[in-house]
Amino acid sequence: MINFFSPKSIAIVGASKSPFKLGNLVVKNLLNQGFKGEIFLVNKKGGDILGRKVYENLSQIKKQIDLVVLAIPADGVIEILDEIGKLGIKNLLIFAAGFKEVGEEGLKKEKLLIEKSNQYGFNILGPNCVGFVNTRENINLTFLRGKVKKGNIGIISQSGALGSFLVDYFNQKENLGFSYFFSVGNKTKINEIDLLNFLAEDKNTKVIGCYFESVENGKKFKEEIKKITKKKPVVILKSGKSKQGAKAALSHTGSIVGDDDIYEAVFSQTGVIRAENLEEFLLILKIFSFEKVPLGDKLLILTNAGGVGVLMVDEVVKNNLKTILISEQVKEEIIKKLPNASRISIHNPIDLLGDAKSIDFQTVLGEALKDINFDIIVVLLTPQANTEIERTAEVIVNTQLKTKIPIYPVFLGGKSVQSSLDYFDKNKVVGLDSFYFLTTVIKKIVNYQNWLKREKANVLNLDISNDEKKKIDLILQSTQEITLNVSKTFNILKILKLPIVNFIEVKNLSDLKKANLNYPLVAKINSDKISHKTDVGGVVLNINNYQDLEKAYLNLSKIDNNLLIQSMIKGDEFIFGTKKDNVFGTVVIFGLGGVYTEVFKEVIKLVYPFSFDDFINQLENKRFYKLLKGVRGKKEVDLHKIYDLLFKLGYLTESFQISEIDLNPVIIKDGELNIVDGRIIK
Amino acid sequence: MINFFSPKSIAIVGASKSPFKLGNLVVKNLLNQGFKGEIFLVNKKGGDILGRKVYENLSQIKKQIDLVVLAIPADGVIEILDEIGKLGIKNLLIFAAGFKEVGEEGLKKEKLLIEKSNQYGFNILGPNCVGFVNTRENINLTFLRGKVKKGNIGIISQSGALGSFLVDYFNQKENLGFSYFFSVGNKTKINEIDLLNFLAEDKNTKVIGCYFESVENGKKFKEEIKKITKKKPVVILKSGKSKQGAKAALSHTGSIVGDDDIYEAVFSQTGVIRAENLEEFLLILKIFSFEKVPLGDKLLILTNAGGVGVLMVDEVVKNNLKTILISEQVKEEIIKKLPNASRISIHNPIDLLGDAKSIDFQTVLGEALKDINFDIIVVLLTPQANTEIERTAEVIVNTQLKTKIPIYPVFLGGKSVQSSLDYFDKNKVVGLDSFYFLTTVIKKIVNYQNWLKREKANVLNLDISNDEKKKIDLILQSTQEITLNVSKTFNILKILKLPIVNFIEVKNLSDLKKANLNYPLVAKINSDKISHKTDVGGVVLNINNYQDLEKAYLNLSKIDNNLLIQSMIKGDEFIFGTKKDNVFGTVVIFGLGGVYTEVFKEVIKLVYPFSFDDFINQLENKRFYKLLKGVRGKKEVDLHKIYDLLFKLGYLTESFQISEIDLNPVIIKDGELNIVDGRIIK
Repeated sequence: MINFFSPKSIAIVGASKSPFKLGNLVVKNLLNQGFKGEIFLVNKKGGDILGRKVYENLSQIKKQIDLVVLAIPADGVIEILDEIGKLGIKNLLIFAAGFKEVGEEGLKKEKLLIEKSNQYGFNILGPNCVGFVNTRENINLTFLRGKVKKGNIGIISQSGALGSFLVDYFNQKENLGFSYFFSVGNKTKINEIDLLNFLAEDKNTKVIGCYFESVENGKKFKEEIKKITKKKPVVILKSGKSKQGAKAALSHTGSIVGDDDIYEAVFSQTGVIRAENLEEFLLILKIFSFEKVPLGDKLLILTNAGGVGVLMVDEVVKNNLKTILISEQVKEEIIKKLPNASRISIHNPIDLLGDAKSIDFQTVLGEALKDINFDIIVVLLTPQANTEIERTAEVIVNTQLKTKIPIYPVFLGGKSVQSSLDYFDKNKVVGLDSFYFLTTVIKKIVNYQNWLKREKANVLNLDISNDEKKKIDLILQSTQEITLNVSKTFNILKILKLPIVNFIEVKNLSDLKKANLNYPLVAKINSDKISHKTDVGGVVLNINNYQDLEKAYLNLSKIDNNLLIQSMIKGDEFIFGTKKDNVFGTVVIFGLGGVYTEVFKEVIKLVYPFSFDDFINQLENKRFYKLLKGVRGKKEVDLHKIYDLLFKLGYLTESFQISEIDLNPVIIKDGELNIVDGRIIK
Repeated sequence: MINFFSPKSIAIVGASKSPFKLGNLVVKNLLNQGFKGEIFLVNKKGGDILGRKVYENLSQIKKQIDLVVLAIPADGVIEILDEIGKLGIKNLLIFAAGFKEVGEEGLKKEKLLIEKSNQYGFNILGPNCVGFVNTRENINLTFLRGKVKKGNIGIISQSGALGSFLVDYFNQKENLGFSYFFSVGNKTKINEIDLLNFLAEDKNTKVIGCYFESVENGKKFKEEIKKITKKKPVVILKSGKSKQGAKAALSHTGSIVGDDDIYEAVFSQTGVIRAENLEEFLLILKIFSFEKVPLGDKLLILTNAGGVGVLMVDEVVKNNLKTILISEQVKEEIIKKLPNASRISIHNPIDLLGDAKSIDFQTVLGEALKDINFDIIVVLLTPQANTEIERTAEVIVNTQLKTKIPIYPVFLGGKSVQSSLDYFDKNKVVGLDSFYFLTTVIKKIVNYQNWLKREKANVLNLDISNDEKKKIDLILQSTQEITLNVSKTFNILKILKLPIVNFIEVKNLSDLKKANLNYPLVAKINSDKISHKTDVGGVVLNINNYQDLEKAYLNLSKIDNNLLIQSMIKGDEFIFGTKKDNVFGTVVIFGLGGVYTEVFKEVIKLVYPFSFDDFINQLENKRFYKLLKGVRGKKEVDLHKIYDLLFKLGYLTESFQISEIDLNPVIIKDGELNIVDGRIIK
């Protein structure tokens, strides 16, 4: 695919004289960007544009065409495909909207396009896209506004408008620029995975930034991106978090968006850095682009503005970053060297007070860097009367040159700080005019560092024999119904050695008499057809003696004569389940059960397969994690047992004719799991 | 106090030739700001500064001095107080640090200052402050950097540095400026309540913005600010949300910060708009200053950037704002009038597509404003190839002139959009370069609008007779212990007609035999001394018959012979309680009980007294609210009953010799409250 984006000769079909038309903007952009290769302009009307000859059709050109750009409507695109194919041109960039994203008619065109691609071996970017940019070879084949600045950030976007914003934004900032920009459009041929792999291999790209509304092939995406993030940071801004956002996305690109929680799980399992919003997206890109990347989360704040320092500490704490105190040794050195040391506050933040001069910052920075305990230094400055704004900026830039520890200056203000903020950009120091997004971003980057350090994933190695697989299949096939009853479900889980409550099936009174389980007991109907047993009065709890047991049996057998008797367990209720997601496949779910499920919605989701680390990562973010670690005298649960159960449920759903599993509740008592109810759905 | 801030003659003690000294900066600022009144410079050394005569001491001046400014160290301040007092000068502005905020020595000086104030009738701003600004009378008595711009925003700040940031920030923006700026310092005399009242009455102040770390007199603050917010919006940025932030605040101003949740409650109960961070603070101030205030939360988004529109919808939904669809009628008008109507998406956002021109925005805005359903219109623009950025900005400004509905243009980009953003400021249109903070801010302002509409507060009118009050006092005095036992606690609550579980006190077996409560029962020790009964095995549950009851009695009476037998109730557990906060007084707490309390910390706090509306406001934000409204077949609870109980607990704590009440649990069953345990602590 490399040669797709490095054509030496480009033909633009639909080139136009008219200044607002696509076919004119693209030509201008290509010329302005400085492309040195061959450009062929094509338009039925012929003539000339910008002093260049215009061919009436492609066949007239008679030279090698590496890439053909179609700046014509969808119908024109369909018509020209055979000509392109017969000329042996393989690479096509198609701008036109009107394909699968507009409905029935468009879908037909999209299918035709795919047919012709297969027939001729086309590679296509688009349709319905704004094009691409390769800054190293001065190629700007987009109709975005303005020349695109060269740099080390690779962008893949499902939105052309976002591209236009980024181009304009980077134009205003020194040292921020693109290695490549790709607008994926409908992803008919080239999709985001191809582009991610391309950028992963590109030596000029230091960081990959993506804006996605959806992904094409979920399973493949998950496999591929896991390898890419090990090579290079990938930052994804994904929209459609809300259902309404998803609805808006649908009308935007005709893509099926899918459950955002599951994307969240996939990103977490694959080392992707997810930006919650544009501001985080830009800041993360800048940090990697300028190579001022923190390796840990221990933060030191230096400020001339105590009151504002307090506000920043609130943010730091909110994000669980650490503001440890400077070491005593370094503290003493600072006190020795600063003239007004008795007045300043050497805490964290270190408050140098309002009249701090640049030399004070220099002294303290110098000493602080001897304290090997910090990962990041933030210099928080407000423009007070005696503040030497530009000189302090110089001190910071010079200090940054001497250390690998990133220094982030936050200069708050208006007029007075503007030139310093530009100066930081010029020197590739990550300067900011606000600290609001900084702490969250640091947290996410540090999580990524931890991802990079992770050993080979500790995924459970299931050793299921063919015999066991056959037994599972037999049970699945033993009923025509979609839903398996409780005992069938239990029996399948038992094959995988999962912790089922003690139970017996009871079809008549003599079965009942033979039951030798300890009280208290639960009696329930065991029907293939009835899923919601409690709704039909099909469950009797708290059975303490044989009379009650027999009474329960007689009542329940009026509903169904297939019954189940099991031990009654009291403890904390949890839900375990699986389902099939139409983008990513098998998803497992684990969370708090009982009435609190609906109130608190405390669940984690993981895409199968997943490692124990993946599981813990998600769990740590949840409040109910504390319950599992033991609270108010409860015994701690061995988390590996929970992981084991979840993984096996995932395995079943993935490997057998199963679409969904629902174990609700699983009761944890004295640190042990007890599956007390369940449904497997084919 | 008005004349404090409008002096016609000012004496500056400590005036200095030296350009970096406070005594020089202040003089320069006063002159640069354009003060036309009399200025007297005082310095022991005499001579002249900036061509003006310098008196050797105040007594030499022999003219009326309305305000004396002390730009001298703390010790000098103490020495000069008698001279000032004897000269009959009443108003003092004191910059010096080194008073109560630095510890023991400083506290002594602070006390002396207070003594002298009382002796001579001084009014003081400071000490340990950066001064004040009155733009209408060209008074800048601060050592902040630069001339302070005039405008309609009144600022009260506990941080001088924040002041310097704001001055510089407003200087960069058209039409943003101060009516007044106050740095409160140590609030020895003039405190934030005085300043808030002052600004509330100032006709040039449209909005009051405050940065606080703590308040001086919590109860007074709560009473006063409730009246002020009805006159004028008050936006508070308060730091110290985290304990570490609070620690940093302590070292900053020596102020006791207090529990942030309780500040949150107070703000919620008094119509204060709380800004979570600087960015929200600035945006809220701008919206009120430009008088582009939304009256409701129904939002319409107009964009040329579909992909970015999706991102904004995610933010809108996150904040529970409404994006309702445009009416069919208006939709049809738009379709008629736009040339490419078939391609655009008339949803919400209305996506005019990348090639939208200014006339398209004009058309759609014109039609949209006929739909009376919207409260706010956001125009979200990215700089695409054919975007007429400045002309679209003009369209927006012109449209805004014709309607009261605020239009918020969000212009994303860099170079290309800068002049438009300045143009918006020039025309008092609230333009933004990011939509991130907009939705949260709209939500907060709309909450404020609801506050303004609220009728007279529906506070419970307790009618406790003197007789009942005497009975309560008697029970409180009936024990020397600090903690009342369960039965005494129950008896007090019964006097207030609160729903206590059925119980009897049992001191011997014959009491036990007389017990005629229905099973199941609970038996517990009823000791003044033992608070944590379960820890000593002092509670027996699930007593189903007399034999078990007698057994429980015999066991428990080994621990204590004062016992209590009560009905056993099963249901959902909640906690109700009160405590005394050292800033705001009596606080009531209500939340989810049982093991989930520690895991989820789902509680609300209210400062007594509080209305039913206050209670509901807080409750609505909590996830456990759903449990009370009835979920999974549970009966809905009458929230007035909960309010009633909470209010009465607050009343007890406020009006009697009670420091804390702890009812844990209160069990809600079938919609009814049952107090099953409790402790009153004196």
